[in-house]
Amino acid sequence: MNGIFITFEGPDGAGKTTQLKQLAEGLKKLGHDVLVTREPGGTAISDQIRSIILDPAHKEMVDQAEVLLYAASRAQHVHQLILPALQAGRIVLCDRFIDASVAYQAYGLGIDVDQVKEISRYASSGLQATRTYILDVPVEVSLARLHHRAGSGSDAQQLDRIEQKHVDYHSRVRAGFHQIAADHPERVRVVDANRSEEEIAADIWTDCNQLLEEHISV
Amino acid sequence: MNGIFITFEGPDGAGKTTQLKQLAEGLKKLGHDVLVTREPGGTAISDQIRSIILDPAHKEMVDQAEVLLYAASRAQHVHQLILPALQAGRIVLCDRFIDASVAYQAYGLGIDVDQVKEISRYASSGLQATRTYILDVPVEVSLARLHHRAGSGSDAQQLDRIEQKHVDYHSRVRAGFHQIAADHPERVRVVDANRSEEEIAADIWTDCNQLLEEHISV
Repeated sequence: MNGIFITFEGPDGAGKTTQLKQLAEGLKKLGHDVLVTREPGGTAISDQIRSIILDPAHKEMVDQAEVLLYAASRAQHVHQLILPALQAGRIVLCDRFIDASVAYQAYGLGIDVDQVKEISRYASSGLQATRTYILDVPVEVSLARLHHRAGSGSDAQQLDRIEQKHVDYHSRVRAGFHQIAADHPERVRVVDANRSEEEIAADIWTDCNQLLEEHISV
Repeated sequence: MNGIFITFEGPDGAGKTTQLKQLAEGLKKLGHDVLVTREPGGTAISDQIRSIILDPAHKEMVDQAEVLLYAASRAQHVHQLILPALQAGRIVLCDRFIDASVAYQAYGLGIDVDQVKEISRYASSGLQATRTYILDVPVEVSLARLHHRAGSGSDAQQLDRIEQKHVDYHSRVRAGFHQIAADHPERVRVVDANRSEEEIAADIWTDCNQLLEEHISV
């Protein structure tokens, strides 16, 4: 397998999609063959599974079903799209991967971490990213960005009781991402995303170029 | 949990649905509160997952995705429908359950048996049937019944190369069911389904009544 598999993780509102696009464009300009994809989704079957997971009508969905649906979507995505691209030597940039399941479902919802990891491992046949960028922002900042994006105009100073509950949940998720970074220092880079897009992109670009050099020299 | 959970297993064409209905009617006549359900399916979310699994257009579905989708469907089915019914003291009759995954996916497709069991255990939070009836028929008989049902008019003597491949697969599945029965003698009853509906129903009825007596006397 000659390709490089790079994943972007972090909360909604941290700027993952923007950074992923910028990195993809930079790499393409250098002549690399880049595949940009995302979880959950990326294939027709995965997209259908994604629509079941995200359907707001499915309030009755139990934790176990959610974990298994994310894993099923990942299994199809990995085997149909990601692995063949890596085997063809491409650079694959993926918006969220296993770490998202571990952070949101295991650390966030309190589902057994080892169980989520084991099911993810089965789904991905053990595939892990070459490099993972965790875009890290304080919870209040990512929530405020989301509020701004949704056009509600509220900010961190005006969170109500339900939103405060969200803060607790997202704080557990953020701590989960930090734990993942601590567990995998060789793979994971935590990027301070509470800065300008340009500053964040510059850090990722520098690290990624170093990664490419190491990869080529191997 | 006061309810009784009875599952029916075996190949298509063995008569599971007929026997399940007959048993349900008999139990209802005795005044029991019976829930009849099936896998994959049984809830709105499970039915949506079922439609993804069974869509003939999804030829590219990988084994891992199939295993995880069946498990996700089971997770929702168990937690939303089966467990609450059992907690309410009802008798639940289910057309296929974990043994079907083990027989068809693990033994039939050659996916690691322990992995399939472990994922099923996670999905069902460890729920297992009180009693399982495996309706057992020679592969040639179940395939011939299916052909007859499909109106193709072919029989066991006229299987072509592709159909012969199916025979090998279904032979592994049947052997898998026998292995499951050998592994769980206290739970599983293998019923010779190569007999008349009445004879099969009589055997199941006798065993089930004994099970009910034991259950009540506990």
